[in-house]
Amino acid sequence: MHPHQTSASQVLLEEQSLRDGLQNEERLFSLAEKLEMVGLLAEAGIGRLQIGSFVDPRRVPQMRGIEELTQRVHAHWPQLVCSALVLNAQGLDRAVSCGMRHLSLSVSASDSHSRANAGCAPEEALERMTGLVRKAVDLGITVRAGVQCAFGCVSEDEVPAEAVLAAVQQLAAAGATEINLADTAGLAHPLQVRQLVRKIQPAVPDKVLSLHLHDTRGLGLANLMAGYEAGVRLFDVAAGGLGGCPFVKDAAGNVATEDVVHLFGQMGVATGIDLHRLITVVRRYEELLGRELPGKMRRVLAPTKA
Amino acid sequence: MHPHQTSASQVLLEEQSLRDGLQNEERLFSLAEKLEMVGLLAEAGIGRLQIGSFVDPRRVPQMRGIEELTQRVHAHWPQLVCSALVLNAQGLDRAVSCGMRHLSLSVSASDSHSRANAGCAPEEALERMTGLVRKAVDLGITVRAGVQCAFGCVSEDEVPAEAVLAAVQQLAAAGATEINLADTAGLAHPLQVRQLVRKIQPAVPDKVLSLHLHDTRGLGLANLMAGYEAGVRLFDVAAGGLGGCPFVKDAAGNVATEDVVHLFGQMGVATGIDLHRLITVVRRYEELLGRELPGKMRRVLAPTKA
Repeated sequence: MHPHQTSASQVLLEEQSLRDGLQNEERLFSLAEKLEMVGLLAEAGIGRLQIGSFVDPRRVPQMRGIEELTQRVHAHWPQLVCSALVLNAQGLDRAVSCGMRHLSLSVSASDSHSRANAGCAPEEALERMTGLVRKAVDLGITVRAGVQCAFGCVSEDEVPAEAVLAAVQQLAAAGATEINLADTAGLAHPLQVRQLVRKIQPAVPDKVLSLHLHDTRGLGLANLMAGYEAGVRLFDVAAGGLGGCPFVKDAAGNVATEDVVHLFGQMGVATGIDLHRLITVVRRYEELLGRELPGKMRRVLAPTKA
Repeated sequence: MHPHQTSASQVLLEEQSLRDGLQNEERLFSLAEKLEMVGLLAEAGIGRLQIGSFVDPRRVPQMRGIEELTQRVHAHWPQLVCSALVLNAQGLDRAVSCGMRHLSLSVSASDSHSRANAGCAPEEALERMTGLVRKAVDLGITVRAGVQCAFGCVSEDEVPAEAVLAAVQQLAAAGATEINLADTAGLAHPLQVRQLVRKIQPAVPDKVLSLHLHDTRGLGLANLMAGYEAGVRLFDVAAGGLGGCPFVKDAAGNVATEDVVHLFGQMGVATGIDLHRLITVVRRYEELLGRELPGKMRRVLAPTKA
């Protein structure tokens, strides 16, 4: 099966725990620990994962050594669709050098978020990123183009859907085969998800649309459900609900893989993932991080006393 | 406004923190503390709340003194729609004696749950409860009839929707003006909520349908959203996401009032509740209970360091 091929009774999940999940964790994972987690995730049935980002390890220490991780994962789990996040030209060069075949390239739709993260206005970041998408596609890499803050940004009143649409169309035209709309700040609500999906998908009918949702305000699964009902079949997830800022307890993680697998399982929608094996992954993350993670299904299936 | 009158742009929330929220807490709240919580909830704009249950205080010590609480709440906050849970004839007599004007009477649709909680099969419990509904209505009490485990029970494979429908019709015929479907075990999923609401509401078109949802598996708000989109305009909530078994950390609370208020606020649906004042209520509950509660919006609006 092509990794993008899904239907109403089947969805695809992209595991983000090693990238978005760990990027802000102070506790650094060794290469061996990351490989252990990839192995446990693969055993649970995860078929697609982001293993990290090609960013400056001085800025994001958790991402140090992503080259070796990439090579080891490619060698040991050739069946996995393994991708990574790239935010600039140096990152793309590094990713190409170590043989990445799938990449996520992303820009922010929010002016303040773009200036803080990419060091320039969204328009300039989009121009640069469009060039990088073209370059990656020319090198035979499958590109997913992401729009961060697609549903708003805490420092701004609103991110116009028109701006998101314009960015999506430009990135799609440059050759990205998948478009990811990210609720970076966990601000989306279900009606907004439905509206944006219905606006974006018809504008890029030949592209796969995916959603990256955070549970900051408790709406992660409600938003995911709204996306599913609007036709989205590919979702980012992170075991345990890892992610966000580790200094705010339980605050802002990704939607938890195990909770998403349970939801789809209840609705008769196949994910290909074994929930009980996934709980083993969550428990191992909790053990390594020394704290409970916010996902609910580990509590249900492997409860610990308070 | 009649407490049941709502529209697509307006919903009504029934606060359950003093009943479902506290019933399993070992830490007993004094009368003064309960009155303080009612006051804070009323200041936040809560218009309707369940203050407790008329059950044997030897079985549920938290409910000791509900008579005095009822009288004090009626005297101090006459504008509040104040109700309580009644499960048997003695409870009804006690509730009538202290002047309750709104009551929730409920039965379980699950055989094993009914036998464990009511000491008899659902059919027998339903017969008894139907008699109590009639009696309460004859006494001029507004009755909400609830069906527990309407979406399933952990000890059984399935609770048939037909059994839920039959119970609802019988309780409605006995004079209940509101029907509450309770996901007691937190087992519902959004498609199931939509299906059951669409099955039940047309069968009792003149009754108000309400939902009581737990977030055990992370689906509380997704289920609430499904109910809202299927036409439900009245939901049970509990500040902080209180509720469920306190021995399983963060496991099984009600949908958190503050998260529901935030969701509806984002969608332009009025609840009449001030989110920031509500956070004060949650913080006070956390202070009295000595732990963080699972609701998300307190973490967003009044974050504490991990």
